[in-house]
This record gives sequence, structure tokens and C-alpha cells, in this order.
Amino acid sequence: MTVRAKARRAPPGRVAYVDGRYLLHGMASVHIEDRGLQFADSVYEVFFVSDGKLMDEAPHLDRLERSLDAIGMKLPMTRKALGLIMQEVVRRNRLTTGFLYLQMTRGVAPRDHAATDAMRPLLILTAKPVNSQAIETRRAAGVAVVTTDDIRWGRCDIKTTALLPNVLAKTEARKRGAYEAWFVDRDGMVTEGSSTNAWIVDGNGVAITRSISDNILPGVTRRVALDAATAAGVKIEERAFSRDEAYGAREAFLTSATGGVMPVIRIDGKSIGDGEPGPVATRLQALYRALSAANAAP
Amino acid sequence: MTVRAKARRAPPGRVAYVDGRYLLHGMASVHIEDRGLQFADSVYEVFFVSDGKLMDEAPHLDRLERSLDAIGMKLPMTRKALGLIMQEVVRRNRLTTGFLYLQMTRGVAPRDHAATDAMRPLLILTAKPVNSQAIETRRAAGVAVVTTDDIRWGRCDIKTTALLPNVLAKTEARKRGAYEAWFVDRDGMVTEGSSTNAWIVDGNGVAITRSISDNILPGVTRRVALDAATAAGVKIEERAFSRDEAYGAREAFLTSATGGVMPVIRIDGKSIGDGEPGPVATRLQALYRALSAANAAP
Repeated sequence: MTVRAKARRAPPGRVAYVDGRYLLHGMASVHIEDRGLQFADSVYEVFFVSDGKLMDEAPHLDRLERSLDAIGMKLPMTRKALGLIMQEVVRRNRLTTGFLYLQMTRGVAPRDHAATDAMRPLLILTAKPVNSQAIETRRAAGVAVVTTDDIRWGRCDIKTTALLPNVLAKTEARKRGAYEAWFVDRDGMVTEGSSTNAWIVDGNGVAITRSISDNILPGVTRRVALDAATAAGVKIEERAFSRDEAYGAREAFLTSATGGVMPVIRIDGKSIGDGEPGPVATRLQALYRALSAANAAP
Repeated sequence: MTVRAKARRAPPGRVAYVDGRYLLHGMASVHIEDRGLQFADSVYEVFFVSDGKLMDEAPHLDRLERSLDAIGMKLPMTRKALGLIMQEVVRRNRLTTGFLYLQMTRGVAPRDHAATDAMRPLLILTAKPVNSQAIETRRAAGVAVVTTDDIRWGRCDIKTTALLPNVLAKTEARKRGAYEAWFVDRDGMVTEGSSTNAWIVDGNGVAITRSISDNILPGVTRRVALDAATAAGVKIEERAFSRDEAYGAREAFLTSATGGVMPVIRIDGKSIGDGEPGPVATRLQALYRALSAANAAP
């Protein structure tokens, strides 16, 4: 092998994309007056990458555009151009299994709460490999959840980086030995997890998850799992369920781009069902993965 | 003058402090995995600087520590050390009249919602001169306010950078030709402005502002103005007031570190009082400024 060929094959450093440039991840930064940093004036998406392919790319980009529109921003390039940059970040990181994180801020400007149309959005992309075996081990064991009051704002349907309430909830969950926190509204109904959607299965085997009209994030994995379940004849219901209903559920699980369908075996210390991952969650994970992979096929 | 003396006197570039270093403002940045940028996992303060002195420094630092405590963080240095760094930023910027902006994030870490005690806080300080004449011109004219639904989270007492709802409200206000937006809760009561506290004066000359026990930011200027008013025998009341009460008020005004006491002459297009800055607001501004200056004297 020539020196040149060797250099071309040398494992690259982790690469990030920031505002038009590909940078070594460790050196990638934004100005201290970026509005994402000063005001949480930014939105984001997380894509799961499997076999080097972006999963559920179209619905994630649909949601990104929806989030941008809700805060008065626009994609600063065509979807096609963005898709090519995302693929390039995956390629430069030689990512086979992992996540692509996309954040779009309103850009750098002298500090003033008011946004103007003159501001130039700033795009950040990072890639991270994951140990998929660790995820499968967690899926096989199931996870614990704790509940906490939902004190978030009234537009949780927008995927913004104003995530401090979610940070505090997740941090509390970890301190209480749990993997995730489920938010419960003032009516005692579960809204969603701090970074996942929440599901239960009732005594008739019906998979229940809150309607997205109801101040929750329209989860992409939630949507694809619902579509997969419907196609396979799994009974589903989109409605709010209470904390008490969750305690008494036959099964419970979470959905997210990062974990797929993840069984919940304990809520607030109480065993759910027989305290093991249940058959509906397991089946939905298989259905979800199959549909997601089919959608990703070229 | 020697070349050296001249160099010493050359106007410096604007200087920012980031994580232990003094940097040219234009070059100052944070890593893309700073938790302030990715999660709004950060708090901030804005200090008014007059005659090169930090106004109301102690109550601002009290509130900073309170905000940090509320999200499970600590000052990463003594208050004295922080005070010295703040003064140094003022000095290096030759700032006489303007603002010192302080932001403290939970630091840089691989993206994960959950915070850990191992995270190392990151401190950012910037300085900015202001044209105080422009502020006085605005004060003499008074400003317009529009009201908007308060859909913020349940911990608005914490001064965090999760400010997107405030950004959206302020942006809407500017589009509607107003200077500030007042949030109104589901009971029709005014909570506070997007970056200011809200006040009215009733028919008996009583200055009214919402109690801080009630999901609003404990404004430092609000507090000092209340103290100054009390000392001068101005009648005050800390209680919620409704939007309708504001429409019919004799006067209205805002308080903030950046504007002091700022008269409001119009709310949602309706003239307040006789549509001019009122005597209580004008008197409170003088009282506030005098007390604030007295507090700052060495």
C-alpha cells in the first residue's frame, strides 16, 4: 500500500459541520452571541443511522420544517442540499450505526430578545457512533420510569432546544435510579417522556399513546410505530392515559429515534405487568424496525 | 508620546471572558456541545454599568446563586473572585455606561439530557456600551406594550436562557409596533414582560406590581425600585393585576436593569392615563437611580 493510500484510509477524527464548514469535532464552536446559546432560539432533530443510512429522514425533515415555521424561521437551503450535507457528515465520520444530531439556530446577532428576518440561520451537524449491543441489552432488560409534574411551556409540539425542564426531569429520574421521566399534567394524565413518547398496553392488548394534538412532541418513531402497528393489525388508540392507568397497564414502553421501542418494566417503583418486557412492545419494535428500514431503502 | 505609550492608549477591541480567558469579542466562542447551546442548561444575569461601576451587583449575584441552586449548579468560584473578573471585563472594555452580560452554562459534555455533578460550569462575560441618551429619549417619550398569552413554563422565577417563549413574544411585540410584550395568564392577570417587570398605578396613586411568589422573575430593578419607593413614602402594593385593570390604569411602566423605570403610554393600542409618561413613573426612576447609585458607592 502506498503512503498516500494509507493516509486516505487512516481513521479520521470525528467531524462536525458548522455553518458551512466541516471541522474536527473537538474544535467545532459557535460564537458566544449565537442566539441558540443566549436564547434557546433554535430547533433540532436527532436521526438514527443504521447501516450508514439515515432512518426516517423524510418525517424528521418534515418536523424540522414545521418547528422552524412555528418560530418564524426557514430552512436556509433546499431539503435536497441539506440531505446531501447530512450524508456527507455520515460519510466523513464513517458512521454505520449511530446518531446524526442536527441543530439550527437563528444565528449570531448582538443580544436582543427580538428576532428579525435579517438574521442568518446557523446549521450544526454532529455524528456519533453507538454501541447497538448496549441498546439491545437495555431493550431485553427493560427500563424503569419515574413520573414528575409537567411544568413545561404550552408549545411542546415544537422541537426546540429550550430543554431545561427536560434536563431537570431526566436528571431527577437518573438520581432516582430510572432511565426516563414521564411528565404528568395537572389532570393526572401522562403527556410524554423527557426525550421519548410514552405508551401503555391495556388489558385488551390495545397499545395506547397520547394524541399529538395535545401539547406533546409529534414523535417520528411514535408515528412510524403507529403506522407499522396499524398495517400489522395491532390495536392502537391515540388518547391520553392517566398515571394510575399506567400503573395498572399490562405493558408500557417508550419510543424515540435513539432507542426505538423500549420496554418499561417499572413506573415509580411499581412493576408493570409481570415486570418483564412485554410481547406488544417486542412485536412493535420488530414492526417499527422493518418499516423504518423499508422506508430508508433507496 | 512614545510608541509604547500610544499602544497602551490605543482603543482596545471589545473583550469577552470565556471559561478563564479574556478574548477578542469577535473571536469568543463555545464548543458546539456546550449544554447552554444544546439544552438551554444555563442561567444568566445582566448588570447595568454606570460610571464604570456595576449597579445592584449584590442582588444580581444573590439571584444568580439562587438560579444556579434551582437547577442544581454552584458558582465555580467565590463571589469575590467572580466580582474581580467582572470588574476586569468592565476595565478591559473601558466601559463607563453600558451592560455586563453574564452567562453560566453547565459546561461542555457529550450530549445527554441528564446532568451530572462531574460537569464543569462555563462562565461567559461580555460588555457592551450603550447610548444612555437614547434610553433617556425613550423614557421621555414612553413606550407601547402589547399583551400576549403566557404559555411559559412553571419556573419563571429561575433566570434561565430557555428564553424562546420570550423571544417569540418580543418579536411579535416589535412586529405590532410595540417595545415590549406583557404576558397574561389564563386568569387574565398580567404576569410580567418578556424581559421586564410590569407595573401600573391605580386611581389612588398606588404603584402595583405582581408578587414574586407567583411564577415571575424576582426582578432586581423591581426590588430596588420597591425599596426606594417605600423609603420615599410612595404607596405600593405587590399583587396581581388584570389586563383590564391595566387598560384603565392612571399610569403604567416597566422595570429592568437595562431600562430602569420605563413609562408605558399605550397597551394594546389603548392610551394609558393621558397617554404621556406619568409622575409616579418619573419619580420612581429618580428614586431608583439614587438608591442604586448609593448602593454602588464604595
